[in-house]
Formats: sequence, C-alpha cells, structure tokens
Amino acid sequence: MTSSNRITSPAMTASKTAAVAKPTRAGRKAPAVETAPEASELKMGELSELLGYALKRAQLRVFEDFLHCVAPVQLTPAQFSVLLLLDANPGRNQTEIATTLGILRPNFVAMLDALEGRGLCVRTRSPSDRRSHILMLTDKGRATLARAKKLVATRHEDRLTELLGRDNRDALLSMLATIAREF
Amino acid sequence: MTSSNRITSPAMTASKTAAVAKPTRAGRKAPAVETAPEASELKMGELSELLGYALKRAQLRVFEDFLHCVAPVQLTPAQFSVLLLLDANPGRNQTEIATTLGILRPNFVAMLDALEGRGLCVRTRSPSDRRSHILMLTDKGRATLARAKKLVATRHEDRLTELLGRDNRDALLSMLATIAREF
Repeated sequence: MTSSNRITSPAMTASKTAAVAKPTRAGRKAPAVETAPEASELKMGELSELLGYALKRAQLRVFEDFLHCVAPVQLTPAQFSVLLLLDANPGRNQTEIATTLGILRPNFVAMLDALEGRGLCVRTRSPSDRRSHILMLTDKGRATLARAKKLVATRHEDRLTELLGRDNRDALLSMLATIAREF
Repeated sequence: MTSSNRITSPAMTASKTAAVAKPTRAGRKAPAVETAPEASELKMGELSELLGYALKRAQLRVFEDFLHCVAPVQLTPAQFSVLLLLDANPGRNQTEIATTLGILRPNFVAMLDALEGRGLCVRTRSPSDRRSHILMLTDKGRATLARAKKLVATRHEDRLTELLGRDNRDALLSMLATIAREF
C-alpha cells in the first residue's frame, strides 16, 4: 500500500456534485484530518457522468431540504405524498393508494399506522370486501395537509424553481416523468 | 364512508408518472380486483407537480434497471460507485471515500465487508494512522469493475440517452448536479 499518501489532482471541475457531501456524516471520530493532512478532494472520474448517481444525490438533497422545510408539521416526503393522494382520491382502498405510489405493502401499513395514530387519516373496512381497507383523510389530516402544502410551496419548491429557472425546472420535471414512465 | 365506490375521472393526462407503478408489488393477495371492479386510475393531483416525488420515482426506476443490467456481476448502484471511486483514487482512506459518496459510516462498513468478502477490494491499516483504513481495489475488483462499466454503458446509460436524447440527457445531468451542489 505504498500509494497511501498519493495526492490527487486539485483540478476536478467535474467532481463538485458529490464533493459537497456533508463531511461530518461518516461518524463522530472520523480521523480524516489526522490521517491525511495533505488530503485533497477525490477525483470523481466516471461517477460524475452516471445519471443514476446524479439522480440519487439530487434526490437525497431535495428530501433533506423537504424534511427541514416541513418540520413544523412533521411529515416525510412519503407521508406528504400519501396525504395528497388521499385528498385527491377520497374513499379509495389501501392497495390502490400503495400501488399508485409504488410503496411496498409492509412499509405502507407502517406508514398508515403512524398517520392514523396522529389522527390524520382513518382506515375502515370496505362494505363490499371485508378484506379491503378504505382510506379517508380526517379534518385534522386536511388541515395538516393544507399547512404542509403551503410550507412545501413557499419554502421548498419555490426555491428549487429559483435555483433552476422556471423553464429548466419544467423540463426537469418532464424528463423525470419520462424516465419513470418509459424507461 | 359512502364515497367508497366513487369513480374518478378517466381524464388524467398529468397522472401518468406514478400510474406505471408495478401493480403487483403491494402484495400477493392484493384484493384490488374484487373490491373495485370499476376502479380507474387515481388522480395524481398536485403530486405530479412535486419535483421531489418525480426525482424519487425516476431514481427508483433507474436503480431497478441498473440492478437488472448489472446482474451478471452482481453489483448494486452504491457498490458500483464505491469501486469506481476506489479505482480513480487508489490508497485513499475509508472516511474519505464514504464522505465523498455521502454514505453513512455503518452502511459503508457493511458494504466494504461485502466487497472485501468477494475479493474485490482490501482494507489495510494506514501506516501513518493505525485507526485509519486505506482502501485498494484488487485485480479481481478491477476486472469486475471493467465488466460492470461495459454493462452499465451499453445496457443502461445508452438506453437512457436514447430515451431522452443526448442534449436533454446532458441538461438533466447538469441540473441534477446543480441541485446536489447548490440547493
């Protein structure tokens, strides 16, 4: 391992994407400073050309910001999407909602337990099929959703639009939808 | 719950993104057919305008396709990114690699255990700091990476480029990098 002190090139214009990773996440006792006083940024190489990697980094950053912006009403992105879908489709069953959102059944049951425990939605047996659960928002759920929508729009989505520009933002949304639908 | 049989509008041009969710994921005994013989697609409503949701759906689809395309060498997207980064930065330490990729320390240790167990990389104590681990690809790791890179390029990334068009694909990559870096 004689190459352990190799110093990588400081010219890494294509490597900024991931180099902004929060540096303290890897653990409290990270010995980076002691072991590599000469450490420079790593070369991202072909990683910077991988669409999947870029998608994941952007998605993680957007979700992190979402959680921060929506903290006053304590909703995760997935919970917010469930509430939005229940609001737009009252009285549909659990399987339809989970399938539409692409959420696995066990995860969805746990999520509904949490939302119902907070009084935001209710599950009732379907009168036509006792094995099926119908989902409805409660008044509290609708009020929480309304508050969350305002927070998401003003603190989160508006800032994304500002960062990218309206046209680029729309183009991005369209390409992402194309990938989800057609790839 | 008198609205349980409500039929939603069939005109949902904005809802296609998530409606393509694999319908069988939600569980083997999904009673959707029995409970809602008249079921139509759900209204996506404001969900179709949420960038975070679109990012997550696209990322899941791309990762799913990646796993399928790279199945011959059995690498996850995260494992592939680690091998790429080790190849471009031999002799850097564990903390630097994990931090650059934004992978949490416990997850990264588990991932290295798996990669080292397959003989794709080795961890050695740093001569300058015994608490630090230096990471290197093995010959087998380099060979596996080379094979994976070909699979990713020809089966996966090329198809994404074909779907979006080269210019759009480049614009997408650039916007995702901007979000990860500046949002």
